[in-house]
Amino acid sequence: MHNQYQNLMDMFLRHLESYQINLIGKKPKELYEPEDYILSLGGKRLRPLLALIACDLFDKDPNLSLHSALAVELFHNFSLIHDDILDAAPIRRNMPTVHKKWNSNIAILSGDVMLVKSFQSLENYGFKEYKKLSKIFNETAIEVCEGQQMDMNFETSDNVSVEDYIQMITLKTAVLLGCSLKMGGVNAYTSEENLNNIYEFGKHLGIAFQLLDDKLDTFSENLEKFGKQIGGDILASKKTFLLIKALELSDDKQKKELINYLELQTIAPDKKIEGVLNIYNQLNIKKLCEQEADKHTNIAIDFLDKVDANSSKKDQLKMFALELLNRQV
Amino acid sequence: MHNQYQNLMDMFLRHLESYQINLIGKKPKELYEPEDYILSLGGKRLRPLLALIACDLFDKDPNLSLHSALAVELFHNFSLIHDDILDAAPIRRNMPTVHKKWNSNIAILSGDVMLVKSFQSLENYGFKEYKKLSKIFNETAIEVCEGQQMDMNFETSDNVSVEDYIQMITLKTAVLLGCSLKMGGVNAYTSEENLNNIYEFGKHLGIAFQLLDDKLDTFSENLEKFGKQIGGDILASKKTFLLIKALELSDDKQKKELINYLELQTIAPDKKIEGVLNIYNQLNIKKLCEQEADKHTNIAIDFLDKVDANSSKKDQLKMFALELLNRQV
Repeated sequence: MHNQYQNLMDMFLRHLESYQINLIGKKPKELYEPEDYILSLGGKRLRPLLALIACDLFDKDPNLSLHSALAVELFHNFSLIHDDILDAAPIRRNMPTVHKKWNSNIAILSGDVMLVKSFQSLENYGFKEYKKLSKIFNETAIEVCEGQQMDMNFETSDNVSVEDYIQMITLKTAVLLGCSLKMGGVNAYTSEENLNNIYEFGKHLGIAFQLLDDKLDTFSENLEKFGKQIGGDILASKKTFLLIKALELSDDKQKKELINYLELQTIAPDKKIEGVLNIYNQLNIKKLCEQEADKHTNIAIDFLDKVDANSSKKDQLKMFALELLNRQV
Repeated sequence: MHNQYQNLMDMFLRHLESYQINLIGKKPKELYEPEDYILSLGGKRLRPLLALIACDLFDKDPNLSLHSALAVELFHNFSLIHDDILDAAPIRRNMPTVHKKWNSNIAILSGDVMLVKSFQSLENYGFKEYKKLSKIFNETAIEVCEGQQMDMNFETSDNVSVEDYIQMITLKTAVLLGCSLKMGGVNAYTSEENLNNIYEFGKHLGIAFQLLDDKLDTFSENLEKFGKQIGGDILASKKTFLLIKALELSDDKQKKELINYLELQTIAPDKKIEGVLNIYNQLNIKKLCEQEADKHTNIAIDFLDKVDANSSKKDQLKMFALELLNRQV
C-alpha cells in the first residue's frame, strides 16, 4: 500500500529503531519494556508517515519531521495502552495487550511515561518551532482523550445522534491524523493557510476512514484482508454509524426488533448478526454509510486541492488517500 | 505555617480558582469533574507556593510564576489520581479517591487529560521560557513516574538498600519540589548556577521531608497533628527507611523476628506494631532516621546558602523550610 512512500516509511522505521535501541536496559524495566513491546507490535505507522509526507509535500527535507513523526507515533501507542485497559481488551495485533502481559498498574504508568516522552521528542526543535508544535500537539492530545470518553459514554447512552457520533470519531481518531500532517507542515515552515488546509484534509480523511471501518466490520466480503471477526460490532451492540443510523431511520416495529436483538442475552450470535443485518438491509444502511464516508472524502480532497504545494506531490497524496480508503471497501 | 508567605499563597489560590471556574460545564463532564474535584480537596499547595517563592526570591514579580505554579499543582494532582488507582487507595484527604467516586476508567482518562493540561499551562510563556520550562518539567514528570514504579517494585523485593530507597523517594517526591523552585527561578530569569542550587535545595528538602514523614508514621506523639493512623506503615509492612535500615542492621535473631512480624498474617495488629517497634528501638532506628533527614536538611541549606539572592529573603525561605520539617517532628 505504501509503495509510493516507501522511502519515507523506511526513514521513519530507522528513526524508530534507533529510539527503541535506547530503551533497552533502561530502568525501571517495568516502564520501558512495555513501551518497547507495543512499539514492536507494528501497525500501519500511518501517523508518522503523514508527518513526513506533509513536510515533503512542501518541498522540505522530510528528515526535518522525524521528531514530530516519533511524537505522534509514541502518543498513538500511549493511547492504545490506556484504551486497552479501558476497553478490557486482551488482544492487540494478535498479541497480549500491555495490561494483560504485565498488569494494569504497569500499563497505566508506562503509558504515562510514553505520553511525556511523546512531548519530549519535540524538544529536538528550536524555540519557536517547539512551541508551535507543542501547542498543536497538546490540544490534539486532549481532544483524543475527550473522544475516548465520549465513546465510553455512548455505551450506556440511549440517544446518540449521528452528529454526536461524527464528533466522537473526529476527536478520537481523525484529529490525530490532521495533527500529524500539520506538524509536518510546521516543520516545513509553510503558511498558516496551508497548515489549516492540510489539517482539515487529514481530519476528514480520518472521519471517512473510520466510517468505512465501521462498514467493513459488518459488511466485509474479504475476511482475510479485514483481519477481524465479521459482525464483531453487532455482537458487542457497539454504537457505530450503522447502528445509530438504523435506530434513527427505523419505524416502530423495526426499532423494537433491533433493540430486542441488542439487549436480549439469549439470542445466539449468528441469529443476532443475521437479524440486525436484515434490518440494516431493509434501511439501506450500507449505502448510507458509504455516502457519509464519501461526503468526508470529498471534503478532504477539497481541502487538499486548496493546499498551495507541488501539484504532482499533491496528486500522489490524493492517490495515497484514496488507496487507503479503497482498502476499506 | 505559611503565614510569612500568605500573600503568595493567596495569589496562587486566586489563580487556581479562576482556572477551576473554567472547568465548570466543560464536556465530557466525566473528564473535567474529577479534575475540579481533586483540586477542591485542598492539600498544602506546597509545590505551587515554592514556584512563587523562588521567583520572588530573585526579586521578580511572583505573578510571573503563576502558570508554572499551576502546572506543578496540576501535575501533582494528576499523579495523585493515578497513584491512588495503583495503590487501590479508597480515601484521599478524608474523601473518596477519584477511582472510587467515579471508576478506574474515568480516573485513568481524567488523569491523562490533567497531565496534558499541566503542560498546557506553560503555553502562556514566550518561546524561550516555554521551552526551558517544558524541558525541566518533562524530565521531572518522567522521574516521578520512575519513582512510583520503583516504589511498587519494592513491595515484592527482598533486598532494598537504603541507597535504593533514597533514590526512590528522590524521584517520587523530591525532584518535583526542586522542579517547582527551579521553574520559579526560570520565570525570574536567574542564572544557571542559581537554578541548579535552588533545585538541589528543593530536592534535598524533599528527601528530608519524606524521611521525617516515615518517622512520624511510626513515632508521632501527636496523633491529631499527624492526621493518620500511627503504625500504618508497619501494619502494611511498607518498606520505609525505618524498616529497610532495621533489616540492614539486625542480627540473625532480630531479622528472623522482624520478618516473622512482617509476613505472618495471624499476628494481631497491635502485637505487630509493638513487636516491630521493639526491634526498631533496640536498633535505635528513630535516631538513625533523624540523622539521615538532618544530613539532607544540611545539604539543602548549604545549597540555599550558595544561591545568589537577597539575603533576608533567603533567611525567610530557610526558616520556612525548617518550620516545614519541624512540623514533622
